[in-house]
Amino acid sequence: MSSKKKDLGVTPLSEDVSAWYNEIVFKAELADRGPAKGTMVIRPYGYTMWEILQRELDQRFKDTGHVNAYFPLFIPESYLHREADHVEGFSPELAVVTHAGGKELDEPLVVRPTSETVIGEMYSRWISSYRDLPVLINAWNNVVRWELRPRIFLRTTEFLWQEGHTAHANEADAMAETLQMLDVYAEFASTVAAIPMVEGEKTPGERFAGAVRTYTIEGMMRDGKALQSGTSHYLGTNFAKAFDITYTDENNAVQPVHTTSWGMSTRMIGAVILAHGDDQGLVLPPRMAPIQIVIIPIGRDEGGAAALDKAEELANELKAAGVRVHVDSRDASPGFKFNDWELKGVPLRAELGPRDLEAGHVLVAHRVGELDDKGRPVKEQIPFAEFVERVPTMLDAYHQFLLDRADAFREENTSVVDEWGAFADQVSTGFALAFHCGRPECEDDIKAETSATPRCIPTHGEDADGTCIRCDTPSAYGKRIIFGRAY
Amino acid sequence: MSSKKKDLGVTPLSEDVSAWYNEIVFKAELADRGPAKGTMVIRPYGYTMWEILQRELDQRFKDTGHVNAYFPLFIPESYLHREADHVEGFSPELAVVTHAGGKELDEPLVVRPTSETVIGEMYSRWISSYRDLPVLINAWNNVVRWELRPRIFLRTTEFLWQEGHTAHANEADAMAETLQMLDVYAEFASTVAAIPMVEGEKTPGERFAGAVRTYTIEGMMRDGKALQSGTSHYLGTNFAKAFDITYTDENNAVQPVHTTSWGMSTRMIGAVILAHGDDQGLVLPPRMAPIQIVIIPIGRDEGGAAALDKAEELANELKAAGVRVHVDSRDASPGFKFNDWELKGVPLRAELGPRDLEAGHVLVAHRVGELDDKGRPVKEQIPFAEFVERVPTMLDAYHQFLLDRADAFREENTSVVDEWGAFADQVSTGFALAFHCGRPECEDDIKAETSATPRCIPTHGEDADGTCIRCDTPSAYGKRIIFGRAY
Repeated sequence: MSSKKKDLGVTPLSEDVSAWYNEIVFKAELADRGPAKGTMVIRPYGYTMWEILQRELDQRFKDTGHVNAYFPLFIPESYLHREADHVEGFSPELAVVTHAGGKELDEPLVVRPTSETVIGEMYSRWISSYRDLPVLINAWNNVVRWELRPRIFLRTTEFLWQEGHTAHANEADAMAETLQMLDVYAEFASTVAAIPMVEGEKTPGERFAGAVRTYTIEGMMRDGKALQSGTSHYLGTNFAKAFDITYTDENNAVQPVHTTSWGMSTRMIGAVILAHGDDQGLVLPPRMAPIQIVIIPIGRDEGGAAALDKAEELANELKAAGVRVHVDSRDASPGFKFNDWELKGVPLRAELGPRDLEAGHVLVAHRVGELDDKGRPVKEQIPFAEFVERVPTMLDAYHQFLLDRADAFREENTSVVDEWGAFADQVSTGFALAFHCGRPECEDDIKAETSATPRCIPTHGEDADGTCIRCDTPSAYGKRIIFGRAY
Repeated sequence: MSSKKKDLGVTPLSEDVSAWYNEIVFKAELADRGPAKGTMVIRPYGYTMWEILQRELDQRFKDTGHVNAYFPLFIPESYLHREADHVEGFSPELAVVTHAGGKELDEPLVVRPTSETVIGEMYSRWISSYRDLPVLINAWNNVVRWELRPRIFLRTTEFLWQEGHTAHANEADAMAETLQMLDVYAEFASTVAAIPMVEGEKTPGERFAGAVRTYTIEGMMRDGKALQSGTSHYLGTNFAKAFDITYTDENNAVQPVHTTSWGMSTRMIGAVILAHGDDQGLVLPPRMAPIQIVIIPIGRDEGGAAALDKAEELANELKAAGVRVHVDSRDASPGFKFNDWELKGVPLRAELGPRDLEAGHVLVAHRVGELDDKGRPVKEQIPFAEFVERVPTMLDAYHQFLLDRADAFREENTSVVDEWGAFADQVSTGFALAFHCGRPECEDDIKAETSATPRCIPTHGEDADGTCIRCDTPSAYGKRIIFGRAY
C-alpha cells in the first residue's frame, strides 16, 4: 500500500489502473460482488447511473420509431444450433437449466446470452407481409455469458443491457438501421457520458457470431486502452433463413427479411469510470451523475443550523429546476465530506458556512478544474440570488470540459504508425492507426506479440493504401485501421 | 364457436371468461407464448402497459424514500436452505442451472424465484450500525417459478415484477413500511388501473414462505373471482437470523434487523384485462392505455386526404398536451377499424370525415358508455377548437366511470353469509364475508368443497364475533373475512 493510498483510501489511478478500478467500484458503493461466481450487485449509486442511461437511450430509441417488448429468459437449447456461427460463438459461454419443478427437463434450457434465436422464432410467427415491415423492437433485460475472468461492469456472468432487433424488407433498409443505431450510441456517449467515441466496423475476426457486418463504438480509457461500448450488427438473412422469417412482397413473391441487432450494456458504466477517473477517485460526467451537486453546510450550533436551513432551501430550489442535488448533513467533519464526495466523483461541491451565510453567497468548486497555489480546486463565490440559475450552466460547461479533455487525451495518445517497432510502442499506451492485411491469422500474431487487437475500421478514416504493419502484404481496407489493447 | 364469436372474432366474455381471456390476449397483441413451456413474450402493446405501470409505481416508491438497485439472477442453492419455511415453499417451483461454461457446476445455481436470500446476504455485509438503517431498496427484475398450469400474465414460468426489500431497526418501523407499501399498491390500482382493491391480511395458511405477516390487495374480476394483485410482507427477524443481518444500536448492543418485502408483477396486466373487459374485447382504463384516443380519418380521395391532414394536426396538438394518441391511416374500412380498436380497448375513438371537417368538429365515442337506440355508443360532436382541451377531461371522467363501475360490480357481488348453503352459492359468483375458525385444515375443507379460499382479513372490516361458516367453532379474527374463488 502506497502512502498516497493511505491518505485517499484508494490506490492512485496513475500508479495502477487495475487496482484503482477494483477499489473504486466498491469504495464509491457503485457495486459489489454477488454470491454466485462472476455476478454483480449494482448498488443504488451505480444503479442510478443505469437508470439515467436507460432513460436517455430509451428516449432516443422511441424518437427513432422503436417500441419496447419482452422476450423470455429461457431458450430451448436446439434453437441456438439453427445458426451455425451463432452456436459456435456462444456455446462456451452458456449457462444451462437442466432441472425445473423438481424434474429433469426433456430439453435443456439455455439462459439467454442474447436473443436473436428466440426473437427470430417470434418474428417468423408475426411477419407475413411487406405491410408488417419494418419491425422495430427493443428489449431491456438481463443476459448471461459465463466469464472465466469476471470484472465488475466490464465483464460479468450476468449483465443488464438493451438489445434492439429489427426486421426489414431489404439490405439497404437494414444497413441504414444498423448505422443509425451506431450513431445513436455515439451521440449518447458524447452528449451524456462525455466520452468521444470512434465509430467503425469490426474486422471479420471480431464480428458478432452470426453477423454479416458488426459496427462498434470504441472509447479510450485513461490508461490508453480501448473499451468497446456498444455494437450494432447487420445480420443479413442469416437468422431469417435459420428461423424462416419471410414476407410476401408487393409482387406476391416470398422473401427472407433482413435483420439487425444492437446493444449497449452496464459495461457503459465501466466506460464512464475508466474514461474520466483520477487519483482522487471517480470523476462523473454531470449528465450521468446520480448527484450533480452536493451542498455541505459548515459550522456548529446556531450558525451551523442556519447554514443547514439555507442549504436545504437552495437544494429545494435546485430540485425544482431539475438538478440532482444532495445536502450532506451527516455528523462528520467538512474534510471527511470533501474527500468522500471527491471519491464519489460528484461534479460540483458547494460549501456554506456561517460567514458565507452572512456574506450571502456559497463557495462552489468543480471536482476537476483549475487549482490554486496549494493544489486545491479554485472555489468560486456565487451569490444566493444567482446560484440556482448558475448551476445548470456550470454543469453544462463542466460536461464540455470533460468531453474536451477526453478528446484531447485520445488525440495525444493516437498515432499513425508504419513500422513494427513504433506500432508495438504505440499500442502499449494508446491507439495506433496502421494498415492491415485483413487476415485473421495475422491479427492473432499481432495480439500474441503486443496484446493489441484491431478495434475498428474507422467510419470517418481517410482513404489510403499501404502494406500490412505486421506482414507487409497489401492493406485490405482501403484505409488505416485502429489497433489498441482493450478491456 | 358461437355465432357471436364469428362476428367479433372472440368468444364473448359473458359466455366463457376463460376462453375469452386466452383469445383476447393474442388477438389484441398483448402477448404471445414463448418457445419454452410456460414462458411468455410481452408484445409492444402489452409491454407499453408494463412501462406505464413501472413509471407510475417507481415514482411512488421514490416519493416514499426508496432507491433502486439490482441483485443477481443466480442464487447458490444452499442459500435457500437457510430459511426453513422459505425453502419448503419455493423448492417445488425452482429452475436450476447445473452446467455453465461447458462444465458441471460444483454447486447448482437457482434462478431466483424471489430475492430475500441473496439480498439478505448483501444486507448482512452492508449493515452494521443503527446509522445504516433504514435500508429502503427496490429492484425491477425477472423471476422464475416453475408453473404446471401456466396462463399468460396470471401465472407464467417467468414474470417481470418489482421486489422491494427494506431493513429496519424494530418491528414498529418495519410494520409501518409493510402497510405503507400495501397502501401504495391499492392507491396505484385505484388511481391508475381503475380497480378498487380490498386491502387485508392473509390467513396463516396463505402467508408468503418465510413471512410473519402477509398483506394483500385483492381485486374482483368480471366473473366474480378474486385476483391477488400485490403483496407486502413483514418478515420479522426470520431472514435477519438466517443471514446474520445485525446492527449495533445506540447503546452498543447487537440487534437483528426487521425486514419487509413487497411486490407487484406483470400479473397486474391480467388484472386490468379481467377487471374491465367485455364481450367486444379489452376495456382499458385510460391511465394504463398505450393509446388513449384513436383518430380515424374517413373518406376517399381529396376529402379523405384533408381529413387525414386534420387528424394529424389534432393528434400533434394532443401529443403536445401529453395525450397518447394514434391516427389510424391504414388502408381499411372504418368498420374494420372501429372493431379493431374496440377489441384493443382504446378508451376514446374520434371519427373525422369530410362532412365533419366542413362542420368543424370531430365525433367522439367512449369504448364503454351510453348507447343509442341501435345499441351503438353515443357519439358526441366536439368542435375542433375545444377538442384538445376536452380530451384530458373526458379521459379523467372515463377513468372515474370505470372505477365506479368496478366498485358497484364488487358491491353487488359481495354478501355477508352465515349459512353454509348460502356461502357455497355466494362464492360461486362473488365474494362471501364470513366468520372463520382460522384452522388451515378447515380452509382446506372449504377449498375442496367450493374451490374458494380465504382472500384476506380485510383491514377496514368491522369488528364482529361469530362462529366458523364451515365448522361452527369460534371465529379467530374478530371480524368477518373474505372468501372467494381466485385466479
